[in-house]
Amino acid sequence: MSSKTSHRSKMVLSPLPRGLVDKAVEAALAEDLGLAGDITTDACVPADARAVAVVAARRPGVISGLQLAEAAFKAIDASVEFETVLKDGAQAAPGDEVARISGKARALLTAERVALNFMGRMSGIATLTRSYVEAITGTGAFIADTRKTTPGLRAFEKYAVRCGGGHNHRTGLFDAILIKDNHIVAAGGAAQAIKAARAHGGHMVKIEIEVDTLDQLRAVLPFGPDVVLLDNMSLDELREAVSLAKGQALLEASGGVNLETVRGIAETGVDLISVGALTHSAPVLDLGLDFKSA
Amino acid sequence: MSSKTSHRSKMVLSPLPRGLVDKAVEAALAEDLGLAGDITTDACVPADARAVAVVAARRPGVISGLQLAEAAFKAIDASVEFETVLKDGAQAAPGDEVARISGKARALLTAERVALNFMGRMSGIATLTRSYVEAITGTGAFIADTRKTTPGLRAFEKYAVRCGGGHNHRTGLFDAILIKDNHIVAAGGAAQAIKAARAHGGHMVKIEIEVDTLDQLRAVLPFGPDVVLLDNMSLDELREAVSLAKGQALLEASGGVNLETVRGIAETGVDLISVGALTHSAPVLDLGLDFKSA
Amino acid sequence: MSSKTSHRSKMVLSPLPRGLVDKAVEAALAEDLGLAGDITTDACVPADARAVAVVAARRPGVISGLQLAEAAFKAIDASVEFETVLKDGAQAAPGDEVARISGKARALLTAERVALNFMGRMSGIATLTRSYVEAITGTGAFIADTRKTTPGLRAFEKYAVRCGGGHNHRTGLFDAILIKDNHIVAAGGAAQAIKAARAHGGHMVKIEIEVDTLDQLRAVLPFGPDVVLLDNMSLDELREAVSLAKGQALLEASGGVNLETVRGIAETGVDLISVGALTHSAPVLDLGLDFKSA
Amino acid sequence: MSSKTSHRSKMVLSPLPRGLVDKAVEAALAEDLGLAGDITTDACVPADARAVAVVAARRPGVISGLQLAEAAFKAIDASVEFETVLKDGAQAAPGDEVARISGKARALLTAERVALNFMGRMSGIATLTRSYVEAITGTGAFIADTRKTTPGLRAFEKYAVRCGGGHNHRTGLFDAILIKDNHIVAAGGAAQAIKAARAHGGHMVKIEIEVDTLDQLRAVLPFGPDVVLLDNMSLDELREAVSLAKGQALLEASGGVNLETVRGIAETGVDLISVGALTHSAPVLDLGLDFKSA
Amino acid sequence: MSSKTSHRSKMVLSPLPRGLVDKAVEAALAEDLGLAGDITTDACVPADARAVAVVAARRPGVISGLQLAEAAFKAIDASVEFETVLKDGAQAAPGDEVARISGKARALLTAERVALNFMGRMSGIATLTRSYVEAITGTGAFIADTRKTTPGLRAFEKYAVRCGGGHNHRTGLFDAILIKDNHIVAAGGAAQAIKAARAHGGHMVKIEIEVDTLDQLRAVLPFGPDVVLLDNMSLDELREAVSLAKGQALLEASGGVNLETVRGIAETGVDLISVGALTHSAPVLDLGLDFKSA
Amino acid sequence: MSSKTSHRSKMVLSPLPRGLVDKAVEAALAEDLGLAGDITTDACVPADARAVAVVAARRPGVISGLQLAEAAFKAIDASVEFETVLKDGAQAAPGDEVARISGKARALLTAERVALNFMGRMSGIATLTRSYVEAITGTGAFIADTRKTTPGLRAFEKYAVRCGGGHNHRTGLFDAILIKDNHIVAAGGAAQAIKAARAHGGHMVKIEIEVDTLDQLRAVLPFGPDVVLLDNMSLDELREAVSLAKGQALLEASGGVNLETVRGIAETGVDLISVGALTHSAPVLDLGLDFKSA
Repeated sequence: MSSKTSHRSKMVLSPLPRGLVDKAVEAALAEDLGLAGDITTDACVPADARAVAVVAARRPGVISGLQLAEAAFKAIDASVEFETVLKDGAQAAPGDEVARISGKARALLTAERVALNFMGRMSGIATLTRSYVEAITGTGAFIADTRKTTPGLRAFEKYAVRCGGGHNHRTGLFDAILIKDNHIVAAGGAAQAIKAARAHGGHMVKIEIEVDTLDQLRAVLPFGPDVVLLDNMSLDELREAVSLAKGQALLEASGGVNLETVRGIAETGVDLISVGALTHSAPVLDLGLDFKSA
Repeated sequence: MSSKTSHRSKMVLSPLPRGLVDKAVEAALAEDLGLAGDITTDACVPADARAVAVVAARRPGVISGLQLAEAAFKAIDASVEFETVLKDGAQAAPGDEVARISGKARALLTAERVALNFMGRMSGIATLTRSYVEAITGTGAFIADTRKTTPGLRAFEKYAVRCGGGHNHRTGLFDAILIKDNHIVAAGGAAQAIKAARAHGGHMVKIEIEVDTLDQLRAVLPFGPDVVLLDNMSLDELREAVSLAKGQALLEASGGVNLETVRGIAETGVDLISVGALTHSAPVLDLGLDFKSA
Repeated sequence: MSSKTSHRSKMVLSPLPRGLVDKAVEAALAEDLGLAGDITTDACVPADARAVAVVAARRPGVISGLQLAEAAFKAIDASVEFETVLKDGAQAAPGDEVARISGKARALLTAERVALNFMGRMSGIATLTRSYVEAITGTGAFIADTRKTTPGLRAFEKYAVRCGGGHNHRTGLFDAILIKDNHIVAAGGAAQAIKAARAHGGHMVKIEIEVDTLDQLRAVLPFGPDVVLLDNMSLDELREAVSLAKGQALLEASGGVNLETVRGIAETGVDLISVGALTHSAPVLDLGLDFKSA
Repeated sequence: MSSKTSHRSKMVLSPLPRGLVDKAVEAALAEDLGLAGDITTDACVPADARAVAVVAARRPGVISGLQLAEAAFKAIDASVEFETVLKDGAQAAPGDEVARISGKARALLTAERVALNFMGRMSGIATLTRSYVEAITGTGAFIADTRKTTPGLRAFEKYAVRCGGGHNHRTGLFDAILIKDNHIVAAGGAAQAIKAARAHGGHMVKIEIEVDTLDQLRAVLPFGPDVVLLDNMSLDELREAVSLAKGQALLEASGGVNLETVRGIAETGVDLISVGALTHSAPVLDLGLDFKSA
Repeated sequence: MSSKTSHRSKMVLSPLPRGLVDKAVEAALAEDLGLAGDITTDACVPADARAVAVVAARRPGVISGLQLAEAAFKAIDASVEFETVLKDGAQAAPGDEVARISGKARALLTAERVALNFMGRMSGIATLTRSYVEAITGTGAFIADTRKTTPGLRAFEKYAVRCGGGHNHRTGLFDAILIKDNHIVAAGGAAQAIKAARAHGGHMVKIEIEVDTLDQLRAVLPFGPDVVLLDNMSLDELREAVSLAKGQALLEASGGVNLETVRGIAETGVDLISVGALTHSAPVLDLGLDFKSA
Repeated sequence: MSSKTSHRSKMVLSPLPRGLVDKAVEAALAEDLGLAGDITTDACVPADARAVAVVAARRPGVISGLQLAEAAFKAIDASVEFETVLKDGAQAAPGDEVARISGKARALLTAERVALNFMGRMSGIATLTRSYVEAITGTGAFIADTRKTTPGLRAFEKYAVRCGGGHNHRTGLFDAILIKDNHIVAAGGAAQAIKAARAHGGHMVKIEIEVDTLDQLRAVLPFGPDVVLLDNMSLDELREAVSLAKGQALLEASGGVNLETVRGIAETGVDLISVGALTHSAPVLDLGLDFKSA
């Protein structure tokens, strides 16, 4: 079995660690409620009023973040019932119901914005990711994210990428080695950098190195990197790189990637294409909370 | 002096509270460093190597977030020197130097991504805000943000809006009243909602109410709201609303706002236009860290 | 409808945000339990002993803080049952039952002091507030609190003021503008200060300015402050101020306010009277926990 | 040397643990600054304006809390200079300078209220404590605090008691045993309770037991408690208790203590008198921040 | 009744404060799960698979930490059922079932290591403690722990000592006085140190002083310390110390204590023997989680 | 170059992330200081007394944790000077000076135990690790740690393993895949488990699988795991496994490893040997703080 092939399959969508979810939701609610709480709702809505509401898609997109939305409503009132209609990773059409929520009207109104802020952002990332994934369908490549995430939300944004069918690159500076130009210079050359990385990173850590030219690629391959990052290469160079590497290392293309260029890049035969825009520039997916008669 | 006129001036750009900055930077670094730290840099870069680097703009845009970038570098190594070349709120051209940083090479490499993730996002928001502000220049209106911000980053994103020349709407649910349709229904009508809001919110809290039609506008004006939100009205309706309100309340237009439509909306005479996209859909501003010889 | 009149009505008593309550209770219990816990109760009381106890008033007063008391008992043992007999804001006579609590005897004994420390302090504030509110009954004025609160407990103390029938002034430095003498000097005059405040504070923020003399009042009124703080004025000056302001701004009296002077001040026609003592000098309301046979 | 005599000397006033101070100040500033900071000062005061200010007493009292005040100013701006004129524990007369502060005008204005809220409360406690201490001067008794403190501020309030010349009772439930009536009932009698307490509390923990009658006192003395709490006894009963105990245990009087009754209680010969009011009902000491020309 | 005798009885094993347990478990899980969670289990184990597992002893030892293990499983999935078979403090033989756990297979696998890391360490301490306790059985002495605990885990390690039948010395620097040689030098002599300690520590704090020689012991006894620490004395010196002290103070032996020497030390007649190794050098008790068919 | 060879070199000892160090030290000091601080030192040692002290080894061992010790002293008093004499990773002989510390005597005494608790534990781990490393010197194998670490201290304990010359296995559940027997059963076989793991873990994550028999080893090798864990195999089986694997995967031996058996295991030709005892059962290294005349 080729390990390269298997990476093309879809990553598993298991739930996010509860500790991360609870902490992020608590912080977001604290930010929105301050010391005085939702003074509009408290003033206008009777304490015992009940409501039913629906999270609905206003635009087509891929759903992500239901776990955070549910946690937001339940953090305000543990008795709120939250029923998912679509699952994370599902494609929604405009008007589709995503989730049904029922409980005290105050709780629904107070948690609404926090819930939608999480889901909108995460679904936006999932939606953009799916566009890239679909643009290269049938090629052998897969789409990966980067560390260009929103500070404090990396776990959620990388989960959203998985919802869209993308793959996660390393989580942070701590779980894999990525040797860039400055590291190579500081280490005294690519060979020294890879050796130092292998010694320090330990035997359970993969090593990637960035190259700008085919000559550099030729120079690093003998040192056995797990992945080589081909930075800003032309399509011709990429094709040549694939031919040179002969499967000795996974090849990652990055730089100048957008929805127009990505298929061409994938067709060069590279293994993966990393796209910072997935997390740093995805527009929100427009979701709304529609109140039904209670 | 008209209070309405004065809102058109630019908000003051005073520094963010240090407590907020330190906490956000600490969380972002913890997320990127995990338990093992920057294993690539630790492996490849000698502990005593020094470097000088420059934050540079790759695209034109408005700078925001220098305080967070500085905090990120200094949290890794307190002896890093950080010199701002442009100030927050300044317009940068591609290639412009934004800040110069010198210190241990390891510290610069380790903090780089966190610093850029904060600045890129905040500068992206400032840049998009400025586009809206410039699009309505010469009209009497101003651009305002919303609560559609990234969970956990509201203080920074609202600051970025100010960097771009926009105005801040309420911070959260706690500091101003915004009565929406569901509140009106629950309260038993717009009049009852405003009365309840005034009683509960207290004398230091402003009150805004959302209307969908001119009839609703006529109905609420006698109850003295500070601001009326005109939701998804046509240009004709907006003009009529301005004429009806006669300055009794500030008028806020929202819905269907984009860079093509915003000037037309402003020219109807409304006082402010709120734009969720400023914070929920601004693409990152492309900034890079260029290393100079040390 | 006059907006001034409506402020005289009672603020809504909606529950405090759960996040604030849980965090404060957790900190208070941590402080009282340390690493070793309640060593007296653990030593003396069998693990399976059950008890019923009653929170009872020893002195007349206004109840406040039941939500925190309940949270304290449940944080020690989630199976404790807590039944409120009186609601927050109710007047209790000596001997009145306030709440009934049943569960493991250890939990009741261990949480007792934290629960009573919260309720005693909050009820003390509510009680003192009600004294002020009743002292001016029938005048058009209302009683407001200040930022002179216990560090860390502002949300709860401002809630207690509402329980006593008082109104909340701004929550902190962030949600309303209050221009004092030093700000005026620094800004180069009252007019400049108000203009700067309006620009910076944004359109959803109210502006108050402090004046010491009638001349200053005359000078600031044309700039449209929402509220003017009349600091340490004589009754004659206050009456003259009311006459001068003609309802253009709310007038707040402060300084030299006590239970003897407050009615005279209210009768001058000012809109509100702020009283730092509500939160900084209210004696505790004496409440006790009486154990019934289990 | 008699251990009883030595307790009458004054407790040492060493600084509070820095970790506690920094955390409390950070929380208090966060509460006052929210997400937007001090919008009045930011709007009105130029960023480079400097000022000198003095913390001054408006009423006579005992100073406490300078460490927290200093931390508050420095948390806003580390370059603020803070010079103490009086030390914690010193008696101040109205008008006395307590501390001199110089630095950026913004920092001084922004931190002012938090600094004064800490110092006012702590100095109020120190002042009330000193009243009690002076009321019993010349008797052999000392004044002690209780666990009836403000949630979250116990360390600071017990320090303030020391500043006033009082003594600290146990810190919390964890560091000493205090057996009350409910514990005795649950344990099956006073003897059983003391035995259980001694076994569980360990050899480094003192044991106190509460009695309501002289018969109870006679019953517990043979079991060797370190301290006996005489609850709500008459002066005659207290005198008899002193005579009965013959120095076998320290005797603590509590209940019905106020500034009128405390000397009579002390003259019965009890060793200490505990006063809940020191921390739960002390009015604030009026301190102000006066700005000098910079 | 002799207070010295009573200390020999076993300390009560009441549950640890929930706040401490939840916080420690949350931190341990965060450390093990990072941002991505248990990627092995998520990949390999179906979301709906259920399992039953047993915590079993692989070696003989004393059980401790069941409360933390239960909290770990429930923090991952609140619906996990956790049934204790042995109680904390029980002696387990190899193969003995300690607890039975059933629920989602993923939850059991994900929490396994954290649960065992807590229980293994705590049971290791309990087991070593019991060895010391049994080594001196029949003598009048008891075994006590020290402050040489793992940073962050003191509450749990001192609880584990109680599980093993040991006694807790002071919890930290804050709850009892222990005057060592450097304190004596700084205070100007042992007498001065004890006086200063009594004044500062307050009447609810016990005082211990360390001596190296019998002359020092003679010198300190008249000043009434509650406990005297006999540091590194020979058996002859210890016997002589017991004879000198005549029960005026508890005598603690420390230094050179191991399982070979401890009985001889106890037989000298000292009251307690403190053993740092209980917490700083106890090997883990080998416990495993065995999965049964679900 | 063989990637297997390079793992045998020593891992780089770069400093721990400051955020982790500061947080752990703060928690440890809070635990030891409580609300009242170091009451012995405060009572006995004058505030202005200064001292010089030396951290010295009492037994031979490998030093680790100087960064935490320094942080502990400076957290108490930022003006303490801390000079390292030996570096982390150095071998100390009994009596060797490890670090020199000078500053206020109170700060040195108050931080002493926390500093030594960190260093003693970490140096104990480093020392035990070095014993294992030296026991296999000259073989081609290296020593690795496990996830059997003290809850909350994993980063520090894994650093200590590096100080002793050991290698770090995966940090937690999140950064590498380790498929154990229960995962294989749940996934429906070893092949399915590896495929699932590769898909979910992503391309930057290494995959290890546990086998108990040579047949299992033969079965998994074709699926390309990066590492195979040989659990509890005999020396003969291990040799056979090395022969079977032919370098296709790293081979890790575990189970039944102690200082007597480890060399024999290493000589079978396995690549690494993991030892849980490094972190779960290392006795403390005895270090002391000796005060010199100031």
